[in-house]
Amino acid sequence: MAKELKNLTKRSENYSQWYNELVVKADLAEQSAVRGCMVIKPYGYAIWEKMQQTLDRMFKATGVQNAYFPLLIPKSFLCREAEHVEGFAKECAVVTHYRLKNDPDGKGVVVDPAARLEEELIVRPTSETIIWGTYKNWIHSWRDLPVLCNQWANVMRWEMRTRMFLRTAEFLWQEGHCAHATAEESEARTVQMINLYADFAEKYMAMPVIQGVKTESERFAGALNTYTIEAMMQDGKALQSGTSHNLGQNFAKAFDVTFVNKENKPELVWANSWGVSTRLMGALIMTHSDDNGLVLPPHLAPIQVVIVPIYKDADGLKAISEKVLPLVEELKAKGISVKFDDADNKRPGFKFADYELKGVPVRLALGQRDLENGTVELMRRDTLEKETVAFEGIAGHIEVLLEDIQNNLFTKAKNFRDSMIFKVDTYEEFKEQIEKGGFILAHWDGTPETEEQIKAETKATIRCIPLEGGDETPGVDMITGKPSPRRVIFARSY
Amino acid sequence: MAKELKNLTKRSENYSQWYNELVVKADLAEQSAVRGCMVIKPYGYAIWEKMQQTLDRMFKATGVQNAYFPLLIPKSFLCREAEHVEGFAKECAVVTHYRLKNDPDGKGVVVDPAARLEEELIVRPTSETIIWGTYKNWIHSWRDLPVLCNQWANVMRWEMRTRMFLRTAEFLWQEGHCAHATAEESEARTVQMINLYADFAEKYMAMPVIQGVKTESERFAGALNTYTIEAMMQDGKALQSGTSHNLGQNFAKAFDVTFVNKENKPELVWANSWGVSTRLMGALIMTHSDDNGLVLPPHLAPIQVVIVPIYKDADGLKAISEKVLPLVEELKAKGISVKFDDADNKRPGFKFADYELKGVPVRLALGQRDLENGTVELMRRDTLEKETVAFEGIAGHIEVLLEDIQNNLFTKAKNFRDSMIFKVDTYEEFKEQIEKGGFILAHWDGTPETEEQIKAETKATIRCIPLEGGDETPGVDMITGKPSPRRVIFARSY
Repeated sequence: MAKELKNLTKRSENYSQWYNELVVKADLAEQSAVRGCMVIKPYGYAIWEKMQQTLDRMFKATGVQNAYFPLLIPKSFLCREAEHVEGFAKECAVVTHYRLKNDPDGKGVVVDPAARLEEELIVRPTSETIIWGTYKNWIHSWRDLPVLCNQWANVMRWEMRTRMFLRTAEFLWQEGHCAHATAEESEARTVQMINLYADFAEKYMAMPVIQGVKTESERFAGALNTYTIEAMMQDGKALQSGTSHNLGQNFAKAFDVTFVNKENKPELVWANSWGVSTRLMGALIMTHSDDNGLVLPPHLAPIQVVIVPIYKDADGLKAISEKVLPLVEELKAKGISVKFDDADNKRPGFKFADYELKGVPVRLALGQRDLENGTVELMRRDTLEKETVAFEGIAGHIEVLLEDIQNNLFTKAKNFRDSMIFKVDTYEEFKEQIEKGGFILAHWDGTPETEEQIKAETKATIRCIPLEGGDETPGVDMITGKPSPRRVIFARSY
Repeated sequence: MAKELKNLTKRSENYSQWYNELVVKADLAEQSAVRGCMVIKPYGYAIWEKMQQTLDRMFKATGVQNAYFPLLIPKSFLCREAEHVEGFAKECAVVTHYRLKNDPDGKGVVVDPAARLEEELIVRPTSETIIWGTYKNWIHSWRDLPVLCNQWANVMRWEMRTRMFLRTAEFLWQEGHCAHATAEESEARTVQMINLYADFAEKYMAMPVIQGVKTESERFAGALNTYTIEAMMQDGKALQSGTSHNLGQNFAKAFDVTFVNKENKPELVWANSWGVSTRLMGALIMTHSDDNGLVLPPHLAPIQVVIVPIYKDADGLKAISEKVLPLVEELKAKGISVKFDDADNKRPGFKFADYELKGVPVRLALGQRDLENGTVELMRRDTLEKETVAFEGIAGHIEVLLEDIQNNLFTKAKNFRDSMIFKVDTYEEFKEQIEKGGFILAHWDGTPETEEQIKAETKATIRCIPLEGGDETPGVDMITGKPSPRRVIFARSY
């Protein structure tokens, strides 16, 4: 029974298939009837909610407020910022009509040709344009600045090849949009938010990330500068996990947003935007999970502790419940989310496999003999280690253990990531290493041509110019031999 | 200054204009560049977030889990349930293309005719169809039931006449969709959720509601039965504030969702759905607010207490701050949200008017003389009463006061509502009374024809057949003279 439940492809056999199966088998998400769009199932959504709540609290602590802007954007808005439309307008869902009517020739409904919109509306791929169109009404004086808004929303980009969480036509995200009086303040906020994302990734997702700057060709459409956090998945590929863009005055220019400064002179407003999405779910899964299923860091696990009773009859369950229910209350009082699974239509073995698959960090099992001995069996999901411990004082033990698991997952992921960073000096070496995966620290001459050549020949892109932890010694480009001020990070990526 | 800030139309002059102005002036929302769609501004969104958090907690306490389903629905899905498509498909945003391209004849972008979708996609007006299309994969055995899912989402209905919060093309809402093994269980859940909404309206929004059942012509498209909560606004009009629909087996039939019961026989699944939306913001505003601006019940106010210092110079502010900051901490420790507004670019008079306009329940003002006397000036927004009280023990005083304001708002709204319920026996009386507003308890013969005649002649609709608190004495229809088992509630409505 337990084996059938899992029957999960091994990572070493086919990493990509392992991921796709795990997403479905762990009840995180599934394909929908709509091309490229997924259904996020309750267990997957519960993890996303924990991410949202944490990030939302972190944003608000920096003075950010939430707001909501329209889903549909007039086509003309997208065209206002020239680079932006190049980057986004091409792959969008377009609303052209606002009514259906009964099909005069048969059953069902057809688009009503009389209800054609004068101007087409685009389902937002990102909201800079509609938001800066709105900020024009909000910002008049230096007293109105800064504006620090965030929006939790759905967005759509018509991707040709989709994968659940990693790249879907519709996805959920947050997008922050700030307006400032000075370039310095806007740059400081841009950096503050990428730091916040790195903090979240490391402290909550237990996922080490490298912070850096994108090259011009990898920048957000319309940005002066894009900061990124890059994580490494277990197959050695990079996953861009969050970005923060310094937009300069581009959107203020495009939407004519000016303010009167303290000297009573009009100035253009400075902008930044920053976002993370349900893609983080993919990153979380691929950073920690194993061939037995999902592995969740305790800080984001919807169920942190599951308790499975092992009993023969109703009396046996009653005796165990009497012992367990006070523990459940004690754990809840400590802010630990706990589930006592006394469902009698599933066997303990099935439950064990199911909670393993779902990545619950700590499992307790309690039978008749444990009652007699004053013990409980405890398993930690990260190492799969089982031990029999005293029931007395178990709540305090679990509290410590959860932090230990959280730290252990981070350390394990960091050790793996660090072992997969390679310094390479020749293109031959580069081509050999890239096949094995990892972050490659190499010299680059700074030209888009060399970047493009490497991408075409090896499928590796420059993930970022690292802010710290890189190698700042100058050198020469491995292909052109031209000077390079410092190494950048190359990798294949999701 | 203070007067300019407000300059709000009086309710008695023009209620509708008062509402529209208040929404904008209190910084709740504004019209966007997209027809019929609003921007929810940070202050308005903060109130909506409080509603969301409270409802979400209440839903989860009944076993409901959140999930997320696609924004776009294939056109053919809408047609599966015949009544449903009649009710919804006509007024929808239709996505017909998935790409734009550079305009070959000029600037900007145009729809790429090569990127026409084979099947049009509809921006969801509600999600029964896509969700029941998904439940087919989730439900096989009685062990899979019940399924209790909720979704927080945006939806679109192409309304011709829109008003902020009350009726907008795009709005935010939650929609719960439950699947059950028996008709009884599904009906019990339908009733449970309308009770939950009534509870939320009364305990958090301080808004009395009447629970009842909709007549056939006012039912949700595809439902066997629709339960509603109806509130009364200050102009005597009704506002439908939440609905819960018993959908019977209609959607299970349409999407072929069956389960194997305990006797190993296939059966169709039973469904219900229930929702409230950002329309509740309109209800909240119109229930309590006055000619000075918004009045918020403390349970939903983003800022419950504001403290305004009155000082001449930096030393004066410092002395006040030293006194106030420990109080701020004390209030926060009690779970009270408090703002100490020491901004020096606005005068106290301006701040007073602004917080009045924004409905902050309690305002404290503290000047030099208060410091000397150990006092503080306290104003409660509901009655606008000011008093000077001892600073000592003020936190405890405020805690009690907030509950008092909450209760007072409910009582005031309930007394008003109760004073506006009229029992009427003749159509002449009815026509006279309906011009003055209110809920009219009248006899109705139960036919859609009479209902339609009354609507056409008086613009009044049957808001509901009340579940309790109505009058269950039989009588005769005021127009046709045919027998009526009990009185129903008529009103003009939003």
